[in-house]
Amino acid sequence: MSFALKEIKEARQRISPYVLKTPLLRMPMLDARLGCEVYAKVECMQTTGAFKLRGAFNKLLSLSPEQLKNGVVTASTGNHGRAMAYAAKMLGARATVVMPRTAPQVKIDAVRALGADVVLCGAEERFDVAERIRRESDGTMVPPYNDDVIMAGQGTLGVEIIEQQPDLDAVVVPVGGGGLISGVATAVKESSPRVRVYGADPAVLPAYAQSLKAGRMLTLPFSPTVAEALLCQTPGDKCFPCLQKYVDAVYSVSESFILKGMKLLLTEGKILAEASSCIGVGAAMEKLLPVSTKDKVCFVISGGSVGVEQLRMLEEVEL
Amino acid sequence: MSFALKEIKEARQRISPYVLKTPLLRMPMLDARLGCEVYAKVECMQTTGAFKLRGAFNKLLSLSPEQLKNGVVTASTGNHGRAMAYAAKMLGARATVVMPRTAPQVKIDAVRALGADVVLCGAEERFDVAERIRRESDGTMVPPYNDDVIMAGQGTLGVEIIEQQPDLDAVVVPVGGGGLISGVATAVKESSPRVRVYGADPAVLPAYAQSLKAGRMLTLPFSPTVAEALLCQTPGDKCFPCLQKYVDAVYSVSESFILKGMKLLLTEGKILAEASSCIGVGAAMEKLLPVSTKDKVCFVISGGSVGVEQLRMLEEVEL
Repeated sequence: MSFALKEIKEARQRISPYVLKTPLLRMPMLDARLGCEVYAKVECMQTTGAFKLRGAFNKLLSLSPEQLKNGVVTASTGNHGRAMAYAAKMLGARATVVMPRTAPQVKIDAVRALGADVVLCGAEERFDVAERIRRESDGTMVPPYNDDVIMAGQGTLGVEIIEQQPDLDAVVVPVGGGGLISGVATAVKESSPRVRVYGADPAVLPAYAQSLKAGRMLTLPFSPTVAEALLCQTPGDKCFPCLQKYVDAVYSVSESFILKGMKLLLTEGKILAEASSCIGVGAAMEKLLPVSTKDKVCFVISGGSVGVEQLRMLEEVEL
Repeated sequence: MSFALKEIKEARQRISPYVLKTPLLRMPMLDARLGCEVYAKVECMQTTGAFKLRGAFNKLLSLSPEQLKNGVVTASTGNHGRAMAYAAKMLGARATVVMPRTAPQVKIDAVRALGADVVLCGAEERFDVAERIRRESDGTMVPPYNDDVIMAGQGTLGVEIIEQQPDLDAVVVPVGGGGLISGVATAVKESSPRVRVYGADPAVLPAYAQSLKAGRMLTLPFSPTVAEALLCQTPGDKCFPCLQKYVDAVYSVSESFILKGMKLLLTEGKILAEASSCIGVGAAMEKLLPVSTKDKVCFVISGGSVGVEQLRMLEEVEL
């Protein structure tokens, strides 16, 4: 690991003019269902709709004027691409986002609306295409998670949580690529070691839960999941040691409970978040978390990129 | 008017063990669309899903043990009936809620689940039926809005707003029967007279906007509205003087902008609220409110009783 609380605090100084300090809400209406005193860090209310903006700004603000001038590149269909495009626009850098031809038009349009160049290609070749563009432009690659500067940026969310509610007993974080929980766990454990940090990954593709049990990074077979932002077959090699060091456990949540979490948060909590971001709530509903009714538990609601059309999938979900 | 800030503060003392102090959120992601610095008092996160609990508890806690023993009665299909049933359950009083036979089964079930007796009858006779039950049981009628004790209870929301954000320039409140805005305007104006208070009612049934212009209570012809909780043909005679005294203006919002307000709050603000509760946001989107970009404006999001099925109506709404 080559970042720590110090780098996270520096990141916070750096990005604070550009990134919102999102609310941390006490949500008593969810206590009975989740079996603890519920708090939610509603990062779905972050600018561009997700925590990704923290890492993207930390990365771009760490570049030299020369590097910024040459532009930044990433391969992403989701929140990371939008976050990088937004940060680049704010800082006057040229941004290129490589997306598969099959990406939904609405996501392509959203990135273009931020002034980024969108390059469409086949899904399998998107990382190669991004790397070629980077090389030809002498630009900088902005990876979605497996990068110390990105992880330190995401860690600013953990610093805010401890500041907003110092007497928490546990924090529950969605796990996909692993960048968010690496940053948050480092911030939480290095400032308040007694606070437990739990991760939640999809049971159909539990790359982190399995790898942590095995003690080494495994590559799992591809599986689709409703938590599409958490789709990850292999842990990032820079993230994995952070989880080994600082995360108490990662629990694997079934597809149906991920959706139950989303529906409960929406209908009872009145908060709209994407399925991936509700996986911790789903973990509590599935009774996977070692928490008791007196524990103060903060669920990180990491993003809210969801259109109203997608809410139809919740109609048949039973709470 | 026979209640004032004093009675509202007493109400607050009385109801505080039973009612949540809901968050007041700063929502910068809505600033550009609403033309001001946006704050939201998210009362949709209140227990039972709406502000109605404040008035109901204040009313029931003002009754003698003898009166409580004889039970409480109301005619309501919506949030008020549920709030009264919940308060009665907490205080060990028998509750009877009279509903039209045409009420949705889910609303009937919700009130029954709180232990109340539900009496079904024709829609036109429901107030007569409620009054007969009250007389026969020697119980107490709990009116939804046109009652000083109910209004003082709703006013506790105004006290919280000023406490949570003292430097506001304006507060925007949905107007239906008029109980909520009567209480809130009294609390706000008697503690911070410089804060402007605006109401918003449905343009298809603008009972308050028209009556205030005429200087007397008018009765308007019935019209359905998407803001079903705001359906009111005649101002309450106890509410109307409060609005005349303390409300700067009431603006009438078109049906399409009420729905735009609901969609914007959900998709950009990440807050789920019923259409009626989003009418103030709709008013700002329709450019009806005299606010400027530097004004700190608090929108009262009064309730969140909405099922996921109902969100289909937002799919075709353009922002």
